[in-house]
Amino acid sequence: MTPSRPAPTPALPERLPTVRKDFLSLADFDAVTLEHCLELAAQIKVDRLLGHEAPTAHALAGRHVAMLFEKPSLRTRTTFEVAVRELGGNVVGLQPDVALGSREPVADVARNLERWVDAVVIRTFSQQLLVDFATAAPRLHVINALSDEEHPCQIVADCLTMRERWGTLRGRTLAFVGDGNNVASSLAQACAMLGVNLHVASPEGYHLPGPAVQRATSLARHGARLRLFTDPVDAVAGADAVYTDTWTSMGQEAEAETRRRVFALYQVNEELMSQAKPGAIFMHCLPAHKGEEVTAEVFESSASVVFDEAENRLHCQKAILLMLLNGPAAEPSLPRV
Amino acid sequence: MTPSRPAPTPALPERLPTVRKDFLSLADFDAVTLEHCLELAAQIKVDRLLGHEAPTAHALAGRHVAMLFEKPSLRTRTTFEVAVRELGGNVVGLQPDVALGSREPVADVARNLERWVDAVVIRTFSQQLLVDFATAAPRLHVINALSDEEHPCQIVADCLTMRERWGTLRGRTLAFVGDGNNVASSLAQACAMLGVNLHVASPEGYHLPGPAVQRATSLARHGARLRLFTDPVDAVAGADAVYTDTWTSMGQEAEAETRRRVFALYQVNEELMSQAKPGAIFMHCLPAHKGEEVTAEVFESSASVVFDEAENRLHCQKAILLMLLNGPAAEPSLPRV
Amino acid sequence: MTPSRPAPTPALPERLPTVRKDFLSLADFDAVTLEHCLELAAQIKVDRLLGHEAPTAHALAGRHVAMLFEKPSLRTRTTFEVAVRELGGNVVGLQPDVALGSREPVADVARNLERWVDAVVIRTFSQQLLVDFATAAPRLHVINALSDEEHPCQIVADCLTMRERWGTLRGRTLAFVGDGNNVASSLAQACAMLGVNLHVASPEGYHLPGPAVQRATSLARHGARLRLFTDPVDAVAGADAVYTDTWTSMGQEAEAETRRRVFALYQVNEELMSQAKPGAIFMHCLPAHKGEEVTAEVFESSASVVFDEAENRLHCQKAILLMLLNGPAAEPSLPRV
Repeated sequence: MTPSRPAPTPALPERLPTVRKDFLSLADFDAVTLEHCLELAAQIKVDRLLGHEAPTAHALAGRHVAMLFEKPSLRTRTTFEVAVRELGGNVVGLQPDVALGSREPVADVARNLERWVDAVVIRTFSQQLLVDFATAAPRLHVINALSDEEHPCQIVADCLTMRERWGTLRGRTLAFVGDGNNVASSLAQACAMLGVNLHVASPEGYHLPGPAVQRATSLARHGARLRLFTDPVDAVAGADAVYTDTWTSMGQEAEAETRRRVFALYQVNEELMSQAKPGAIFMHCLPAHKGEEVTAEVFESSASVVFDEAENRLHCQKAILLMLLNGPAAEPSLPRV
Repeated sequence: MTPSRPAPTPALPERLPTVRKDFLSLADFDAVTLEHCLELAAQIKVDRLLGHEAPTAHALAGRHVAMLFEKPSLRTRTTFEVAVRELGGNVVGLQPDVALGSREPVADVARNLERWVDAVVIRTFSQQLLVDFATAAPRLHVINALSDEEHPCQIVADCLTMRERWGTLRGRTLAFVGDGNNVASSLAQACAMLGVNLHVASPEGYHLPGPAVQRATSLARHGARLRLFTDPVDAVAGADAVYTDTWTSMGQEAEAETRRRVFALYQVNEELMSQAKPGAIFMHCLPAHKGEEVTAEVFESSASVVFDEAENRLHCQKAILLMLLNGPAAEPSLPRV
Repeated sequence: MTPSRPAPTPALPERLPTVRKDFLSLADFDAVTLEHCLELAAQIKVDRLLGHEAPTAHALAGRHVAMLFEKPSLRTRTTFEVAVRELGGNVVGLQPDVALGSREPVADVARNLERWVDAVVIRTFSQQLLVDFATAAPRLHVINALSDEEHPCQIVADCLTMRERWGTLRGRTLAFVGDGNNVASSLAQACAMLGVNLHVASPEGYHLPGPAVQRATSLARHGARLRLFTDPVDAVAGADAVYTDTWTSMGQEAEAETRRRVFALYQVNEELMSQAKPGAIFMHCLPAHKGEEVTAEVFESSASVVFDEAENRLHCQKAILLMLLNGPAAEPSLPRV
């Protein structure tokens, strides 16, 4: 396969963040909004470490955020729950028996929730379901807590983690080794907006889908390039960070055996890490399967920032909530189109 | 079948609300208490819409309300959770593995909970289980969040919805088309107490049960009449509102196919709505099965108040909680007999 | 089998409580700490009964306690949730799909949680899993909410219950009749530390395991003796309290039939109670299976303190949380070894 080589896109003019009602995709934030969100998350992190009474401690007072998870979650759910509470809001944990779309149509569930709560954090299979949900409820903020296509909240935390290590992200190179999945798609959008070059190495048949490539390419600023590879060594060469994810995402369990064979040469091990830039960091959105997509040596090495990524989920969920619920467009707000 | 035609009952003398320890059935509230509860809910709704610091914002401070749901729930559970929190109380979500009556006898679960929490909201199958639960724990307030026989909290919200549309309910006529189920039984009690005529149209074998008819009849005030029909057109003729519910309630899934045949002629569609009074509203407790008990056209029409009913669940749950937990008889309180 | 007869151990010198990071076993508290914890729980109980604004009402403000339950729970989970809230903290209810050790290694789950929350209350099968969890996360407080080997929080509440009845525990005799299980093991440790003689009557093959006997024996103070019996009448003779537990603990459901036969002669009934000291109390950690390990007569008799034990779970969970999270060693704290 010939890697696509998007031409550099000129930087967009700087402007004030425009905040969408929902956060279904990284592209719901433009580049300025994303940078603003990262700055806010960094400040929130400092406040928490210092044990400050944060200026945001009551930002969500009287607001309710519902959690609706149709796939397992440790990090996303816990960090959203802690984030809402630390912002002074209330968490409503919806039960799996809400059965989106089977017990009750998606649009009806949305129109019910809109009457009682301010936002809903949804982990589900279909990205279209999220769009339908958000469209049906013009006053309800909807946040994508992972779909089969995107995982935007994870990627915001990853960007904060890189920012902590490098100061500025522009001009850095990140190598993603593995399945061109939801994490890779959202990562491609963020890297494009933040001026980070992204190299994605995947086996034939598991490359980042064409629409994800096009979407990311259209968002590129500061000369960010997205390149697809089949050889992980080519992708990792000279990278500032190496990122991988499970070979078998939630919902693909039946393909696990096949995928273990297909991805066998895409393991991030010490040999592969040695091809990256000296001092390169190792990233993973977790849970990790040591001995599969990453070796225990790399996972436990000093290069590994995986638990910083996990911690940053918390600070970034707060920033995302504040951007959506506390922003200028928060009150009646425009319906999604 | 010959519809029963209860004779009008003279209005009861007005008196101060007497509040029961529990709310297991609409009849646990007498008519004056029910009207007081609706008035309170209406006031609470205004406070919330205006964003007021409600006088009830700390009414349940230091109180704990447990949720115990043995059947799926979106509306009831979410609105109780939000209600408790907005009243300053704490929600304790019990897990399904409490397994009422199998892991541990009902009376023992009740006697445990009574030591730690103030109230428990229970959705279960058997009405008798609720009575046993409430009897075993004289200091614990028990609220029926739906049983196979009654659904009183839903009906309080429905009454608030009608009150908002009509000002006063006395002398209005409501047609319920469908299964003589828990919703219909509780509706019959409320209509009787509030002076609303209720027409219930059901196929042979699915009529409101005799005891439910007798109970409602015994509660009738202001000349309220309860009439049973087999022909939905007869029931709907001249009605101010048409109400329907699923043909297959939770726990009856095995009968779904049979019920779809039996109820086929009981669909609320535009033709049936045209038999009601001009301006009649359409009501449903949700979830709705469009194309079965109601058409999408009626559900989505301007006559439909279904999401107002859903919203009013929140305001009414607050009023119910305040009536029970904050009333004159709230503290040591008399055991149920 | 020959009952072991540990020699009396001289009392340890009194010293200030040393608080461990975790509470995985009663032995994580030394005798002084355990007595301090009981004293604190008794004070907390008085404050709650009097409706005082407790001095501990904000002790956990800004702290998060996660709940991770891999077995059913009514008492432990509810009392921890209410306790955390009444101490001003926040509860995070982890979902069963966190799937400790299968979706993600135990040590990784621990290292994630440590980034966001202060403590985690875990009910699981393996005691070693708890140790591994606590070892992996040096800044996270881990509390054993029941494992196959120990149930320390239950036993603290039982000790408070005995203290309320008797004033002082030293020199009293408690008879435990039934399976030498997790409850019996933790009870043996507490009795040893508090100077209570413990008689454990179990059928052959179901005695308290050797290591549990040795551990308890090594903790003995004030002349406390641990004696094992096979005949329940021998064990109960002259006892101040008779304690029993289910014959089939969680996870042993497949053995239920066998166990019913094996334990048939170990039922606590009025005849067995009549062998104890006049005024002896009956104790059970619940849920009870009336007609199996205890008769309904004994369970419902005035000798039964089972619901006091249940209530005391709440007061004691608060004391345990305060000892761990609010103690001198609470902040950075030493990792477990």
